[in-house]
Formats: sequence, structure tokens, C-alpha cells
Amino acid sequence: MPNQTDTYTRILEAARELIHASSYANVGVQAICEKANVKKGSFYHFFPSKQDLTLAVIDVYYVNFKDSIINEAFSSSLRPGERLNRFFELAIAMQSHIHQETGHVLGCPFGNLTTELATRDEAVRQKIDGLFTRLQHLIRDSLQEAVDTGEMEPLNVEATAEAMFAYFEGLMLLAKSRNDPNVLRELLPATTQIRIPIKH
Amino acid sequence: MPNQTDTYTRILEAARELIHASSYANVGVQAICEKANVKKGSFYHFFPSKQDLTLAVIDVYYVNFKDSIINEAFSSSLRPGERLNRFFELAIAMQSHIHQETGHVLGCPFGNLTTELATRDEAVRQKIDGLFTRLQHLIRDSLQEAVDTGEMEPLNVEATAEAMFAYFEGLMLLAKSRNDPNVLRELLPATTQIRIPIKH
Repeated sequence: MPNQTDTYTRILEAARELIHASSYANVGVQAICEKANVKKGSFYHFFPSKQDLTLAVIDVYYVNFKDSIINEAFSSSLRPGERLNRFFELAIAMQSHIHQETGHVLGCPFGNLTTELATRDEAVRQKIDGLFTRLQHLIRDSLQEAVDTGEMEPLNVEATAEAMFAYFEGLMLLAKSRNDPNVLRELLPATTQIRIPIKH
Repeated sequence: MPNQTDTYTRILEAARELIHASSYANVGVQAICEKANVKKGSFYHFFPSKQDLTLAVIDVYYVNFKDSIINEAFSSSLRPGERLNRFFELAIAMQSHIHQETGHVLGCPFGNLTTELATRDEAVRQKIDGLFTRLQHLIRDSLQEAVDTGEMEPLNVEATAEAMFAYFEGLMLLAKSRNDPNVLRELLPATTQIRIPIKH
């Protein structure tokens, strides 16, 4: 018999995959339990509500994203100006890989969940918004470092990072709507042209 | 007794409002019928499936969007360079108005539906993608006119329009995730700084 930690992990892993491939509402407890090969009782033991599950799934998305993309892209071993480009390369590779495997561009799991749930689940909205802010701060800090080292002209790093992040999310959405990862390949590099000047 | 056209319109109007305020999956036929004050039989008479309803709702979104924003912003009475700014002003005003009325930034109805449904409803994905392309072409044609009249330096108008549109969708998503229309006010004006150069 599998131990509790294993059951917990299998439920989360199944939910993460199923929700990313379709949507929050379209994935039922039954489907998650079948994919994870666990009983409904075990599911409700760990996740009394679907909101509990969703909040835990968002954490799993973030841990995966950190391990597979963020840590490598925002490494201090790269020059600040190289970090965004590495981030884009890794994000494009991941979306292209999923597209090859499933036939679909699945887009950003956080963006998908926030467009679906933001108006009716405040806890989910706030959690995703917090992760968006974290990503934005990674971009901002790299821009600031690039300005400090003279790699970039001074600019409004806070607003520019927010604009760059919005552009990234918009391209993920457009790639999903086109079902074509080439949208990312062609247009993500333009992110580094976005500049919000300092207010005077 | 209301006539058929009236019933049809009331169902669509109710579905449009309810889906924009929450999500496709969260809005059931029951809720739509209650809001529209029609019987379920009438609903299924007009919309045998929820997909039929969704495709019709997307048309209603587009007609509203055209009447309230597109026709005014992309009018030939405006200089090409003014059109995008007018488009943004009207989009900001609409999202701010909805935020004041409901307490929520609802974001782009097309972007919301495509992130929720693109991977599992090909008809919906293609319909929204077609409307995205139409909007993108309005932007592209304005850019081309601006280049032709010397208002703008030559640039890759097709790719720039796509990038500008992606940035717009990304900001709508971010404003929804922050639940703050100020994101749009502060960052939409930067759209006009995006330039994709001509490939050589």
C-alpha cells in the first residue's frame, strides 16, 4: 500500500496535469482520482475542498516552474541582460515540447487559472497575483542590475518589468489561441525593446 | 407573451453578462434561464448545445465591442497614429466602468474564453482566433497608413501589430489578476513604443 506522502503527491501531480490541459472547472474529483489511482476518501482527506486543491496545485506549478526555468534563467552566473533571453528560450522550449506531446499549446498555467477564477475566488486570485509579482520582481531586479552596471540606460525598472511581464502573458495567451508556439519564437525576443521611461 | 426574437436576445444578453462576470463552465443553463426569465425549453429550442450558445455569445461580444469601441477608435476621421490611443482610452474606460459597477476587473471576454476553452473546443478557439486576427489587422492597417503618410518610420507592420495586440491582451489579464484597472491606465500607453523592425 502506498504511503500518505506518495498518495498526496500523486493526487497533486494528476490535478496539475489535468487542469493545465483543460481548465479548473472541467476537471472533476473523479477524473483526478482515476488518473492518480487513489480513492475519493483519500482525496477528501487531503483536500476537503476544491479550493484547497487549487491552492496546492498553484504551488506545484510554481515549484516546477522554478526548477525547470526560473533558477536557470535568473542565475547570477548570467549577465543581467542575458537572463530575460534565457527565460524566453526555456519558456518557448517548454511550450513547444508540450505542443509536440499533446497537440496543444497549453499556455501559462497561472494566466489560465486567473482568467478563469479571479472574479470568483479571491484566495486563488491573490495567490496567483503574488506569484506574478515575484516574477515581475525577478525581471525588475535584473533590469536594475543592468542599469547599475551600465549595460542599460536608466529607465523606470518597476513599470518596465510589469510591462514586460504583461507582454509575456499576452504572448502565451495568443500562442494558445493560435495553437502555435511559433508566436512565442517570433515575438518574445521583442520584449527587451519595451522601455518605460522614468517619470519627471 | 414575448416574441421569439425577444426571447433569443434575452438569453444571449443574460449569457453574455454571466459568462463575462465568471467563466464559461461556471454558468449553467439554469442560471441563464433565470436571469433571462425564459423556460429551459425555449433555451434548448434556440441553443441545442452549450457550444451553440458560446459561439453566439462570442458574436454578441464582438458586436458590442465594435459598436462601443472599434468603430469609434478605428475611424478614418482620426489620424492613424491617434487610433490606437483612442482604442486604449475606450478600453480603459470600459474596464474601469465595469470595475466600479461590479467590484471586479473582468478583462477581455475573448481572452477569458480562449484560455478556458482553446484546448478542448476547436470551434470556439478558431472563432476567437479569427476575431483576434481581425483586431490585429485593424492595428496593422493603421500602422501601414502611418508609415505610408510618413507619420511613422517603416517597420514590420504585421509583426508589430501582433506584438501590440499580445501586449494589450497581457495587460487585460494582469489588470484582472491585480483586480486593478490602473494597470491599464499606467501601461497601455507604452504599446505605441513596441516596434518590430523589418527583416533583412
